[in-house]
Amino acid sequence: MARLLLCSRKRTLRVLKTLLPILEWLPKYRVKEWLLSDLISGVSTGLVATLQGMAYALLAAVPVGYGLYSAFFPILTYFIFGTSRHISVGPFPVVSLMVGSVVLQMAPDEHFISNETTFNATIIDTAARDQERVLLASTLTLLVGIIQLIFGGLQIGFIVRYLADPLIGGFTTAAAFQVLVSQLKIVLNVPTKNYNGILSIIYTLIEIFQNIGSTNIADCIAGLLTIITCMIVKELNDRFKHKIPIPIPVEVIVTVIATAISYGANLEKNYNAGIVKSIPRGFLPPVLPRVHVFTEMLTASFSIAVVAYAIAVSVGKVYAIKYDYAIDGNQEFVAFGISNIFSGFFSCFVATTALSRTAVQESTGGKTQIAGILSALIVLISIVALGKLLEPLQKSVLAGVVIANLKGMFMQVCDVPRLWRQNKIDAVIWVFTCLASIILGLDLGLLAGLMFALLTVVLRVQFPAWSSVGSLPHTDIYKSTKMYKNTEETEGVKILRFSSPIFYGNIDGLKKSVKNTVGFDAVRVYNKRLKALKKIQKLIKKGQLRATKNGIISDAGTSNSAFEPDEDIEDPEEFDIPTKEIEVQVDWNSDLPVKVNVPKVPIHSLVLDCGAVSFVDIVGVRSLKMIVKEFQRIDVNVYFSSLPDHVIQKLEQCGFFDDNIRKDIFFLTAHDAVLYLRNQVKSREVQDSILETVIIGIKVGSYKGAGKDPPLEEK
Amino acid sequence: MARLLLCSRKRTLRVLKTLLPILEWLPKYRVKEWLLSDLISGVSTGLVATLQGMAYALLAAVPVGYGLYSAFFPILTYFIFGTSRHISVGPFPVVSLMVGSVVLQMAPDEHFISNETTFNATIIDTAARDQERVLLASTLTLLVGIIQLIFGGLQIGFIVRYLADPLIGGFTTAAAFQVLVSQLKIVLNVPTKNYNGILSIIYTLIEIFQNIGSTNIADCIAGLLTIITCMIVKELNDRFKHKIPIPIPVEVIVTVIATAISYGANLEKNYNAGIVKSIPRGFLPPVLPRVHVFTEMLTASFSIAVVAYAIAVSVGKVYAIKYDYAIDGNQEFVAFGISNIFSGFFSCFVATTALSRTAVQESTGGKTQIAGILSALIVLISIVALGKLLEPLQKSVLAGVVIANLKGMFMQVCDVPRLWRQNKIDAVIWVFTCLASIILGLDLGLLAGLMFALLTVVLRVQFPAWSSVGSLPHTDIYKSTKMYKNTEETEGVKILRFSSPIFYGNIDGLKKSVKNTVGFDAVRVYNKRLKALKKIQKLIKKGQLRATKNGIISDAGTSNSAFEPDEDIEDPEEFDIPTKEIEVQVDWNSDLPVKVNVPKVPIHSLVLDCGAVSFVDIVGVRSLKMIVKEFQRIDVNVYFSSLPDHVIQKLEQCGFFDDNIRKDIFFLTAHDAVLYLRNQVKSREVQDSILETVIIGIKVGSYKGAGKDPPLEEK
Repeated sequence: MARLLLCSRKRTLRVLKTLLPILEWLPKYRVKEWLLSDLISGVSTGLVATLQGMAYALLAAVPVGYGLYSAFFPILTYFIFGTSRHISVGPFPVVSLMVGSVVLQMAPDEHFISNETTFNATIIDTAARDQERVLLASTLTLLVGIIQLIFGGLQIGFIVRYLADPLIGGFTTAAAFQVLVSQLKIVLNVPTKNYNGILSIIYTLIEIFQNIGSTNIADCIAGLLTIITCMIVKELNDRFKHKIPIPIPVEVIVTVIATAISYGANLEKNYNAGIVKSIPRGFLPPVLPRVHVFTEMLTASFSIAVVAYAIAVSVGKVYAIKYDYAIDGNQEFVAFGISNIFSGFFSCFVATTALSRTAVQESTGGKTQIAGILSALIVLISIVALGKLLEPLQKSVLAGVVIANLKGMFMQVCDVPRLWRQNKIDAVIWVFTCLASIILGLDLGLLAGLMFALLTVVLRVQFPAWSSVGSLPHTDIYKSTKMYKNTEETEGVKILRFSSPIFYGNIDGLKKSVKNTVGFDAVRVYNKRLKALKKIQKLIKKGQLRATKNGIISDAGTSNSAFEPDEDIEDPEEFDIPTKEIEVQVDWNSDLPVKVNVPKVPIHSLVLDCGAVSFVDIVGVRSLKMIVKEFQRIDVNVYFSSLPDHVIQKLEQCGFFDDNIRKDIFFLTAHDAVLYLRNQVKSREVQDSILETVIIGIKVGSYKGAGKDPPLEEK
Repeated sequence: MARLLLCSRKRTLRVLKTLLPILEWLPKYRVKEWLLSDLISGVSTGLVATLQGMAYALLAAVPVGYGLYSAFFPILTYFIFGTSRHISVGPFPVVSLMVGSVVLQMAPDEHFISNETTFNATIIDTAARDQERVLLASTLTLLVGIIQLIFGGLQIGFIVRYLADPLIGGFTTAAAFQVLVSQLKIVLNVPTKNYNGILSIIYTLIEIFQNIGSTNIADCIAGLLTIITCMIVKELNDRFKHKIPIPIPVEVIVTVIATAISYGANLEKNYNAGIVKSIPRGFLPPVLPRVHVFTEMLTASFSIAVVAYAIAVSVGKVYAIKYDYAIDGNQEFVAFGISNIFSGFFSCFVATTALSRTAVQESTGGKTQIAGILSALIVLISIVALGKLLEPLQKSVLAGVVIANLKGMFMQVCDVPRLWRQNKIDAVIWVFTCLASIILGLDLGLLAGLMFALLTVVLRVQFPAWSSVGSLPHTDIYKSTKMYKNTEETEGVKILRFSSPIFYGNIDGLKKSVKNTVGFDAVRVYNKRLKALKKIQKLIKKGQLRATKNGIISDAGTSNSAFEPDEDIEDPEEFDIPTKEIEVQVDWNSDLPVKVNVPKVPIHSLVLDCGAVSFVDIVGVRSLKMIVKEFQRIDVNVYFSSLPDHVIQKLEQCGFFDDNIRKDIFFLTAHDAVLYLRNQVKSREVQDSILETVIIGIKVGSYKGAGKDPPLEEK
């Protein structure tokens, strides 16, 4: 009893530890060994997080200060629920931009034109606009959180699998391009309209260049200097990463200097520079997001939920592998779901992770999420105390920081030639997703890319590889007769290896491959034979031919009457003549007494080697059955080899077998089939000639039974 | 020279005959034999066509008379360009309804509210409305024709393959339901609004029942009588089809009687019945369709173009098979394209074929399209002369005729249980397409069904069949160890048969199947071994263990210091200790002197039997490489057998091979691999024990090289 109780307590504890991973790692925290490095890491990461939070807020189209909240709140819950020990939770440019596009679409400038017009300029009520945008962003965050929590609850972490590498590559490159354009506007401080929907990025780009005359020189110079400095120092960081203990926090340094200059030179007044202006000091009380606009943002939030999760998990996995611990995909969904729901109430935008920030956290010695919570503390200090100091900072500097971080994403373009060499389809997926995401926008583009990637799978299955195979001399190995020299084919036997599932999409391919392998069209042969039989029968009736046991004996010089031009008139009439049944033996491979062009059939057996047929559907079964019947009619037996057991089972379920198609047509291997057929031929040669008995007067109606595709029924 | 000229003339003739099939069959027309039966067939079909044309015009939401045009014009061009000799070209209910839904959406009643309002009823300007609708229908027809012609030119007749049988079954059943609802309204003569978009059919149904009080009794009775009579006579026709020479043309008889009654009793005046009213006598001059609305109807016209074509070709094929001639799929696209373009200028709606009418044409003796052109002649007579006589006919009688023809389509529901037994996925496709077409409307529903069917292909590929296989005793046949009794497994060797392509969608499945087959997790084993090595090393340093050539010798009673709780704290710290390289030989399958829970590895080789892997993509190659590396680290060799040649080629292209993975890991069959491994073990046992040499102090960093999924790059 006591033991049972213990057992159940243990189980409860395990479940609890799965749901609250903090219970797993916090009690084992080695204060002495880890705390110091976590502290150092926390401070460095916190500084970067402060800066990135503000910069990415520009992408999310909310006032800069709200980026600080987004870099603070999500960490608090992730600390409790997350399973990754190294990722730095917070905003990420691609996701921020996706949030921004929803926000801009639902609250464009045009909605906030102030009633008081001064002179001839329209004045926008920026306070109301920003309030609305923050509310929309946090509503979206809440919805994304709910979706992620549901996904976690449904245990569908596996859907990330569908985001194949080429897809992600194309998508993030397109995102980098989108981010670049959106930041370009801020660097130049050029006013543009907000475009939405298809090609909006192109329109924005055009308008930026149209208005390039109104560039603010102070902002432009500050932005460009930031970009150049950051890129150079990052390059150095990268090149000498083994020689310097921690990467130089160039963004922080640049920001501090830029703030000082802006304050000192009073750039806002003197040069009309666009500065951060107001950062809310302290916290806002939680706000109930606007739940009734959920339906309007549903599609976008699905994309955002999946992308945000995919980014976090893929970055988390890198470090989990490095430090050898497991990341629970479903728990991550739950953790980010809870974090986004929580922070949705505190005016945040969607949180995930950023590789650059996570790299800082890890490289400066972060061991656990203690470093994360310490970085949140630094952000907290910024919110409460330092925020005001950053107010003179130019927005273009922040935009410059963002742009400088895009290099890695753009460099992915270099993957494409390699992909093309290795696998053309993957390269096409990359390019398609990238173009779709640029043209259609990120959410629709991702969806289009996903659909396209799935379609390529169908296409790859649909255009199957097949080959006519023969044995390598003196072995039981069968290889393509086209690819290999010296393959041997048994006389009268053709073997077709079909390497694909058989389903409605590739039936035509199957039929074509059968036809190409055997070298004739079974239906055509049958019809020609029927026609020839009719003629023979007529001649017999006229007495010009005699049917004997040894075949048909033609009375010389009479064959002209059965002459038929080479071009066939296939007239249906002909088949309707009711005929008396006369048994005639015809050797179809000899010259016929009538001049009907009956194609020669050089084989007696066709073996379909189906080792790679992983499934069949009902259309596939029907087509296979039809192929077997069509060949049986012209006295060619069809055998199957290497069919997987479950496929045979499916054939049985779908009514493949009947009186003519029995289960003895299956062989374990192609070689088994060939051995059997060789034996057969030997024993048959002893017994009989290959003359065949055919009943004349088969009514055309018997064609009906062949089970062709049933028509669309209307009556 | 002369011969060359002859050759080129012959080729030109052949091309000409392909483009104008009439040149092929008309010169060979056997006037004496065929003309009479074509004449009889033409007259019967013409009567049915007249009636169906009028009835289906109700579905297309155009005045009844325009259905006559639609039953006349398309035949004229199809006669020249078509390759089917038996189909009766003209309107079909499903396609007519699809046309109708576009027309109703673009020209609803509300657009035509007359300015003069009488009392409190809104009066609709029906003349303007009908004119607009006819114009829209013919514009749509023109567009459909253009699309079909383009499809024909691009030679993409194959796309019909995607319309799998279950898809068509579900779609046509849903269409039958849609037709029923739209005709119910006419039978009852109840006014309803035009609903569009999602669930419109349900709204219509609800409104019909809400307004059921305003049913017109005369129309309702006439309609019901028509339905009952037609269904009974059709049933009799079907049951005694072998005894009666031609089916009783019940629709024609019913219509004639109904017209007479309506005229005699003056149903319109006395009972306010809805009658056909005005049939334009003679022809209207050709009208230029409204080309600028093309973009609005583009999506719908794609669906209509494909559905109309699919119906015609599938019906045509039935008779082509029966009478043994070929239908050229691409030429059919061209023929219907030209027919629809042509008839689009003459106020027609989209033409295809109807199985019921084609059945009449064939069963009454139609041999060629001469019968078709004669039926057009009868329709012409109706247009020019008889039209006026049909004006007192009640619309509800026509609607009754349509409904009576739906039985066959509804009966398809009976296929579903059979489908479910045979192939669950096909049944699900049927039901999904049917529900989607009812809920979303026919065009979107078809698209959704198509997408769903494609998705099932992906899913079927994605959840692969795999099994751990062993040899049947004394054979080289390998079968699933779970499904077959008495399979033999070679000691130390596991064989996994993976029966699916390897691509991004099923990597997880592959990994899982590997793990389940071998019974342990290769990564975990490696990590545990590393940990154990660290401990051993520590103990060696402390002098509590000695590394000798014969393995590790423990000094008794010291193992407590290396105690580790069963629950593993996998702490990253531990791996960071830089260690001096000490060579130690550890027999991992013996009891270790340290108490690290290293899972036993009972195998030395894993064979992946990949005969059914029909393709790999780049993610698949990377994963395979990773699996090989992970197992190599724990001294398990991975071999591949039965890989198709093109997959090996792809592996090479994608950089699968390196210093550790060489091409000698491929075997032609699983049995070859097993024979090789047995030999290996024999020779190794002679040479050496299975103690292995492991280098202590492998840096954790070497994990990185294993080629895990690269992260989303940001920096």
